[in-house]
Amino acid sequence: MTEKKPVQPLELHPDRLFPSDPVQRDIARRLYQHVKNLPIVSPHGHTDPSWFADNANFDNATALLLLPDHYVFRMLYSQGIKLEQLGIRRKDGAVVETDYRKIFQIFARHYYLFRGTPSRIWLDSVFSEVFGLADSLCEQTADHYYDSINEQLAKPEFKPRALLDRFNIELIATTEGALNDLKHHAKLKGSGYEHKVITTFRPDDVVDADRADFAANVAKLGELTGEDTQSWQGYLAALRQRRAFFREHGATATDHGHPTAITADLNESDAAALFARCLAGDASSADAELFRGQMLTEMAGMSLQDGMTMQIHPGAHRNHNKVIFERFGPDKGADIPSPTEFVSNLKPLLQKYGNEAGLNIILFTLDETTYARELAPLAGHYPALKLGPAWWFHDSPEGMLRFRHQVTETAGFYNTVGFNDDTRAFLSIPARHDVARRIDCRFLAGLVAEHRLTEAEAHELAYELTYGLVKKAYQLN
Amino acid sequence: MTEKKPVQPLELHPDRLFPSDPVQRDIARRLYQHVKNLPIVSPHGHTDPSWFADNANFDNATALLLLPDHYVFRMLYSQGIKLEQLGIRRKDGAVVETDYRKIFQIFARHYYLFRGTPSRIWLDSVFSEVFGLADSLCEQTADHYYDSINEQLAKPEFKPRALLDRFNIELIATTEGALNDLKHHAKLKGSGYEHKVITTFRPDDVVDADRADFAANVAKLGELTGEDTQSWQGYLAALRQRRAFFREHGATATDHGHPTAITADLNESDAAALFARCLAGDASSADAELFRGQMLTEMAGMSLQDGMTMQIHPGAHRNHNKVIFERFGPDKGADIPSPTEFVSNLKPLLQKYGNEAGLNIILFTLDETTYARELAPLAGHYPALKLGPAWWFHDSPEGMLRFRHQVTETAGFYNTVGFNDDTRAFLSIPARHDVARRIDCRFLAGLVAEHRLTEAEAHELAYELTYGLVKKAYQLN
Amino acid sequence: MTEKKPVQPLELHPDRLFPSDPVQRDIARRLYQHVKNLPIVSPHGHTDPSWFADNANFDNATALLLLPDHYVFRMLYSQGIKLEQLGIRRKDGAVVETDYRKIFQIFARHYYLFRGTPSRIWLDSVFSEVFGLADSLCEQTADHYYDSINEQLAKPEFKPRALLDRFNIELIATTEGALNDLKHHAKLKGSGYEHKVITTFRPDDVVDADRADFAANVAKLGELTGEDTQSWQGYLAALRQRRAFFREHGATATDHGHPTAITADLNESDAAALFARCLAGDASSADAELFRGQMLTEMAGMSLQDGMTMQIHPGAHRNHNKVIFERFGPDKGADIPSPTEFVSNLKPLLQKYGNEAGLNIILFTLDETTYARELAPLAGHYPALKLGPAWWFHDSPEGMLRFRHQVTETAGFYNTVGFNDDTRAFLSIPARHDVARRIDCRFLAGLVAEHRLTEAEAHELAYELTYGLVKKAYQLN
Repeated sequence: MTEKKPVQPLELHPDRLFPSDPVQRDIARRLYQHVKNLPIVSPHGHTDPSWFADNANFDNATALLLLPDHYVFRMLYSQGIKLEQLGIRRKDGAVVETDYRKIFQIFARHYYLFRGTPSRIWLDSVFSEVFGLADSLCEQTADHYYDSINEQLAKPEFKPRALLDRFNIELIATTEGALNDLKHHAKLKGSGYEHKVITTFRPDDVVDADRADFAANVAKLGELTGEDTQSWQGYLAALRQRRAFFREHGATATDHGHPTAITADLNESDAAALFARCLAGDASSADAELFRGQMLTEMAGMSLQDGMTMQIHPGAHRNHNKVIFERFGPDKGADIPSPTEFVSNLKPLLQKYGNEAGLNIILFTLDETTYARELAPLAGHYPALKLGPAWWFHDSPEGMLRFRHQVTETAGFYNTVGFNDDTRAFLSIPARHDVARRIDCRFLAGLVAEHRLTEAEAHELAYELTYGLVKKAYQLN
Repeated sequence: MTEKKPVQPLELHPDRLFPSDPVQRDIARRLYQHVKNLPIVSPHGHTDPSWFADNANFDNATALLLLPDHYVFRMLYSQGIKLEQLGIRRKDGAVVETDYRKIFQIFARHYYLFRGTPSRIWLDSVFSEVFGLADSLCEQTADHYYDSINEQLAKPEFKPRALLDRFNIELIATTEGALNDLKHHAKLKGSGYEHKVITTFRPDDVVDADRADFAANVAKLGELTGEDTQSWQGYLAALRQRRAFFREHGATATDHGHPTAITADLNESDAAALFARCLAGDASSADAELFRGQMLTEMAGMSLQDGMTMQIHPGAHRNHNKVIFERFGPDKGADIPSPTEFVSNLKPLLQKYGNEAGLNIILFTLDETTYARELAPLAGHYPALKLGPAWWFHDSPEGMLRFRHQVTETAGFYNTVGFNDDTRAFLSIPARHDVARRIDCRFLAGLVAEHRLTEAEAHELAYELTYGLVKKAYQLN
Repeated sequence: MTEKKPVQPLELHPDRLFPSDPVQRDIARRLYQHVKNLPIVSPHGHTDPSWFADNANFDNATALLLLPDHYVFRMLYSQGIKLEQLGIRRKDGAVVETDYRKIFQIFARHYYLFRGTPSRIWLDSVFSEVFGLADSLCEQTADHYYDSINEQLAKPEFKPRALLDRFNIELIATTEGALNDLKHHAKLKGSGYEHKVITTFRPDDVVDADRADFAANVAKLGELTGEDTQSWQGYLAALRQRRAFFREHGATATDHGHPTAITADLNESDAAALFARCLAGDASSADAELFRGQMLTEMAGMSLQDGMTMQIHPGAHRNHNKVIFERFGPDKGADIPSPTEFVSNLKPLLQKYGNEAGLNIILFTLDETTYARELAPLAGHYPALKLGPAWWFHDSPEGMLRFRHQVTETAGFYNTVGFNDDTRAFLSIPARHDVARRIDCRFLAGLVAEHRLTEAEAHELAYELTYGLVKKAYQLN
């Protein structure tokens, strides 16, 4: 019933996401006015560094906007559209749709499904602000969208580096595995963009013994570093070496995506024995969990030495849909959050390093019940802990509001670290930061309107939440 | 202190439940104007089919409005009023209050206890809109209420079928156990109401081995169907037969009330052995849980064959108060929600059937922490899953708002299924649907006021949330 | 960047914490007008009874306002300020800061960290309303604050009893362990303040077998009472005797701070054997947990006999930071909430006593996920249960709003018990009660503005939430 409607104009209202209450809206406008043009600092994300290294034009609307965006195909899939119809490559090589225009048309015809979701906000912003499209996306406008976007993407001003400049991105961090050669970051050296595009050290592939390729990855780690990674000490030394290599390519942070927030603090011989079991393929699932937990504590120790900020992203049940995983692989929209416990799980790490004021550990969660109950009390006490912004499913207007409402009274503002876009969708980065700025200004406006903060304080805080805290937490000054 | 006050007028404000912010209120009014008179579709509830089959006048205010409503007596009981004083029949036959007027007076005297609860909203609507009462219920007005309601109930226009028509109920589904003979639904055939009043297949009594009457029920199932229900395959065949029988009486859906969301996918021989243990009375509590879980998966398979929509209502700790259960039986307001986990528990069923776009499984929860963390991500991915509306304790203005606020950004609107009244309280059905319509319009108005949706989109969505989605999800077209 | 700003005026806006929506604000103002000057009833807190018994002037701003307030030093510590710098005494006697002025300056310099927290609201109220300070606290005003507060504290009108009168405190309950001699309360007899300052019986020290001093405490209990506390029955008799002693010193309530909400109902011989294991030091951690659970049920039984209201405060993971605990002891801001389960855990106690309408058990939680899921349904059914107000981390504007929004629809207002300040920070008591009154009026104003309550009802409820319900629940009439 939504498909035959007349085409609607696409208009981004200047007050979007602000409260409709005029008192709050006016304060929000004033706060936003002072932060909306601040440079974008994107300290954690998943853009492809080859884009910036090679600086080639992007292919086409479908390849750029749809295929890397699991938010998009999870929603379409949930409503009965096959991933094959969306051109997602199958592992068995079976035929999938390759007509990019046709895929874009399917997307356009079902764009109404995104009503009320952040994807809709981000995409409309990209369509309007990056590509200047004046009508809403729907079946009737699909071809015009596809042609217009493709035409623009072919222009020099749509090359990746030009967009970095246009988007006023002061810094963007990509994320690479421990074995990555960082060749794209190396290529950037001397380009003038090497301080704008930095890497992040993500060692999951060499610390997760549940992976089929764990032993092989540890062996490669040995080859890369010349260390004997069959021994516990050699393995740790190899990781230290890789961290230094990543730091040479700009990294100021590490990232750890674990199923839970478990940490451990084993003694040397127990840790070595556990590592040996993992390497030998004798690790039970509990062993693998314990080893990941031990490695979080080891990584915190290394961070204390080399100064890297440590990000922990726990609680995703990855690849919940076995059929989809086997047919299409990971990152197809089938990761589901799980209940996550921090208070007991983080205790071993915190006993050892939690009182270190020089350490920056940033916690993220997909389980919002932990905001007020666990995370704000922990971050409101331990000097080493800070709270990352609302993450993934909660990177949305409502999710951000819940974060601020539930965290601020116990952790304050200064134990948080500003916004992360955490995205593969490069073109949506300005829109994502803009949503965060608007929502933070809105939250602050509420406090001012209710006389819980002065407007002068809110101006200071809006600056901190947008720019000051992220630079400090990720050591980007 | 609340009892000696002057009598207050009973007025249902036309803007009730709308935001007081004028921008949002005006949008909500416009949206509501277009949906308030749409027919009521009530696809899941617990009204008594004999009312519609026999079409006799209702007895009296107490028997109709109070005695079937566990929301009413749980609140009165919590404040020290004995269930005996409210005329609830004891299993031991001991004397309880039988003076219906006196019971109504007790209720009236304590009506202030319901301030802030949805019962108050529903009851005031019934008093005002169904019975035209002009003063609020309190001690002083109790007798007038009792007399006036009874007088009206005796009239022809207050017979059940007349009320179905007056309430603009297009369809209402009752809920019957697998062994039910559906005689009331049979009697409706040829009345002109047989498509308005349909049944729902609820097989808990023949799949729950924790029940004392499980083996007896399975034996009866065999008698009814002529299948050998002592064998696993015969038992399944008998269930298929009953499903077909229910479909002949209008059923388009099944319903499953389980303590948890556990599902299982055993192989044939393990399932048969488990069934045998259950039948023999040798099932441990874990066996019974596993068997219920296996049966959810079996039922999903049968739904795929016969096309029935499947509703899962997990997470109630039934009959928490042993004293009350032993003295008065079930459904006396002593059921308490429990923490409920979906991500791991549903996995076996979803591995098998989750990717079936032709299957409609509707999930409900009493644990709101799962809305954003588990249910929206699951429904926002699996084609077979949809989310039922805020249920039971959460079927309330705040509960509905929390549902929309926490679910929409990840699942969108189109993975939800409209409203269920889920009630025994027939006269409150229009009020309950009206609350849902007002709250949905209010939620949409907020999105429009903050420029997250256009008003044209909100009009489409208001229609879908009120009428379109329920017809589709329950296959009522 | 926040330190060099010009000094800002300190102004408490008369509409603070009210909604900015004019419709709601005006209703909130009217409701608040009628309750703002009601006497303060503080039925649960941790002020020092010697203050009121001795009625000596307080020492100085730092000793009075900062050192007892773990909300203050947890935030400062989280941002890298050592507890030694704040003058917190070390157990090893190592040197810590003793210059109170210097400590106050550190606090002032970092006062911006409290933006958005309830501490900021309470402290600003104390500064403005108790001490008449006109400028905001910051580095530049630190000395003026320190001098002015100290000067005023030396005056007769700032003695504890004068402040009790000035604050319009009708009653305040302190909290003492079971072995306490209550000498301060004894000293109050005949002072005219003995009915204003009462004690509360908190037996954690003699029921928690995880404590190193448990056996010694039980032995002391025997000495104090002349009972044979080595026997189960003697131990129970001794507790009964202590309860009577506390009642003679005004107690109308007991308080129980347990790690979980576990309760038990063992038979006599099992209970006696468990007690013997605990006394002998042979108790496992599960034994100690079970024993605490058994004692909750025993205490409920004693409450039924002697009429004391019973408060249960479960769910704090105490002394999470081992380093801080070993260096500084308990109550240093390192207690963290844990997930808490009530439905199964309370069942043994509720089976035995839950249906007693003469019993008052007040439940508190640090796990807000239980509000709508467990606590409101339990309190909305069991006559013995009531819900305490938002506690500790949730004793805040947002925390109180979440409590009312999530609890009211199922439990109503009359299964709640008004406000507890629960504080050691004596001077902040009026501010804390004022926040509760403002937030309750605000919540009620929302219901009135949305036509869910009449304003006349809201006036009655505002009175009940401020004054009526607390007197009833704690039996203070």
